[in-house]
Amino acid sequence: MVERRVVTPVILSGGSGTRLWPLSRSARPKQLLALTAPETMLQLTASRTAGDVRFGPPVVVANAAHADEIEAQLAAVGVREATIILEPAARNTAPAIALAAYAAAADDLLLVMPSDHVIADVPAFLAAIERARPAVEQGWLATFGIRAIAAETGYGYIRRGDAIGEGIYAVERFVEKPDIETARAYVADGRHDWNGGIFLFTAAAFIAAVEANAPAIARAARAAVSDARRDGRRLHPEAHAFGASPSDSIDYAVMEKADRVAVIPVEMGWSDVGSWDALHALGPRDDAGNAHQGEVMAIDTKGCLIRSDGPLVAAIGVTDLIVIATADAVLVMPRGDSQDVKRAVDELRRLRPLTL
Amino acid sequence: MVERRVVTPVILSGGSGTRLWPLSRSARPKQLLALTAPETMLQLTASRTAGDVRFGPPVVVANAAHADEIEAQLAAVGVREATIILEPAARNTAPAIALAAYAAAADDLLLVMPSDHVIADVPAFLAAIERARPAVEQGWLATFGIRAIAAETGYGYIRRGDAIGEGIYAVERFVEKPDIETARAYVADGRHDWNGGIFLFTAAAFIAAVEANAPAIARAARAAVSDARRDGRRLHPEAHAFGASPSDSIDYAVMEKADRVAVIPVEMGWSDVGSWDALHALGPRDDAGNAHQGEVMAIDTKGCLIRSDGPLVAAIGVTDLIVIATADAVLVMPRGDSQDVKRAVDELRRLRPLTL
Repeated sequence: MVERRVVTPVILSGGSGTRLWPLSRSARPKQLLALTAPETMLQLTASRTAGDVRFGPPVVVANAAHADEIEAQLAAVGVREATIILEPAARNTAPAIALAAYAAAADDLLLVMPSDHVIADVPAFLAAIERARPAVEQGWLATFGIRAIAAETGYGYIRRGDAIGEGIYAVERFVEKPDIETARAYVADGRHDWNGGIFLFTAAAFIAAVEANAPAIARAARAAVSDARRDGRRLHPEAHAFGASPSDSIDYAVMEKADRVAVIPVEMGWSDVGSWDALHALGPRDDAGNAHQGEVMAIDTKGCLIRSDGPLVAAIGVTDLIVIATADAVLVMPRGDSQDVKRAVDELRRLRPLTL
Repeated sequence: MVERRVVTPVILSGGSGTRLWPLSRSARPKQLLALTAPETMLQLTASRTAGDVRFGPPVVVANAAHADEIEAQLAAVGVREATIILEPAARNTAPAIALAAYAAAADDLLLVMPSDHVIADVPAFLAAIERARPAVEQGWLATFGIRAIAAETGYGYIRRGDAIGEGIYAVERFVEKPDIETARAYVADGRHDWNGGIFLFTAAAFIAAVEANAPAIARAARAAVSDARRDGRRLHPEAHAFGASPSDSIDYAVMEKADRVAVIPVEMGWSDVGSWDALHALGPRDDAGNAHQGEVMAIDTKGCLIRSDGPLVAAIGVTDLIVIATADAVLVMPRGDSQDVKRAVDELRRLRPLTL
């Protein structure tokens, strides 16, 4: 009987996105915030696999500035044996995952997950992992394809090729963020899934693919891990070596180029919570379509997302508005336009670089 | 040659209105805020007559809790000889003015002014005072009628009777806040002015009118002044006596009932700044109709009033909105509905009586 290998969750916490400004800041990025539940996005991510015998303790790849907060948040949900790999510099996902792969044993199964996505249907996710497993154990790189339920232009898409097993397909190709016409065609043809950035592979298979397709990244990550300093459960990769790595995503650097890449389509109530609009859509909402949180007094509001982590917000007679208040900043914008928050953040960066 | 009497400005600062919540609070009511200029409304009011030889130092009738702030604000604009009469209790304008009248010499001319109104054209105001003076020195009670430029239902109106001099008329009657049809008729007939709550009379004439028409108020105010404690420039009327006074406005208690009441119509850029909408209307506004103040970053906003006395407010793509931010509260509502702020304040008073 073949020994059943434990899967190591690799949680990517390096992001410092500003699409949820003013709540998300560089000191407290989205994954460290409680947005959809009393738990933070990181806690929800770690909890998906915690306590399940099929999974070992997670590895979190993170910005060094967040190490204490990450350990505290994980401990608060009972995850006490996490390893934290502290990136000496931000180099995007391919080098981050390569650090985890070089630090792992060659035949470890790595389940790579962003730390800031919602997965409402965890059993569906776990079942998809099981479907991926046989191919992964034979050396395939697996990605989970999110059923494309709308013509989103903000996501990459994955085109399914031939089935290589039950509910698992060879990837025909990765497609970058399409225009709206193309996105509509993808949704209509039923052969394209969203690229959710969730992966399963053995460390050895990933390392082989990085070394073949992104040798500079492989070299930098390998050297950084080889000369890493260990401090309890924290691993500090060597900064000079890692700093030499190109900055690139796993999709561009590895997945789009590698052989034997598989996609497992899955419907699991996924959201990247990529905007205030997305958070409003996730709900829960009251009968008037409002999703309010915190110290909010709403009178005759409809279709609004009003959230305060600081001052009392009193809203009267407003419709389809996003209002986000913190102790030092307030955002007000129409719902539906929340990608525009980037404009505010860019303008702020220009005017007051130290505010963010 | 008759000696020309100096006019004593009597500034009423007892209000604690909440129509400009969350900026105005009981501890810092509207008159103590800088809303339309770098100076506060109280400072603007005192500055109208300061340094003009026709006027003596002002008397401010105020809530005891505001005494230090009032003295500091007046000193900051060079008004150092004000007398402050500290009301032991809030009893509306008739008793407040009666305190000032009993504390004055009988033949003093008193110019009664709310502390929280805008008068853009001060020379027009001063000219109107001169027009009022001959009648007032003969014992008339004069009120200044604000030219009714719109069918406002939020103001009282004054109907002119016969002229008793150049630009001064006997009052035919006072009219309470009318419905919109009546207000339109008033504006159309050209015989009605808004009641702006600004008065000129001798102390003796006012006292006679109070004693004749509101004897309980006269008795309470006279006793309170008679037993007052003086502390430098502060006068503390006796609390028990003043507490026995009915609470009533000068209009209801005195002006509507007295004989020999005159109105001097005047156009002087008056506003009671009675709502956020009124403040927006006062401007200044940018080309897109926005009136922003404080730490505001506005992108593609139109017709908005956005003001912060605390956090940065970032507004993107919003139209005709009022956003007022302070350190502990944020108000968001459509422009045009700002009388509704009362609903928020009433709700807050119900939920959290200590917040206001």
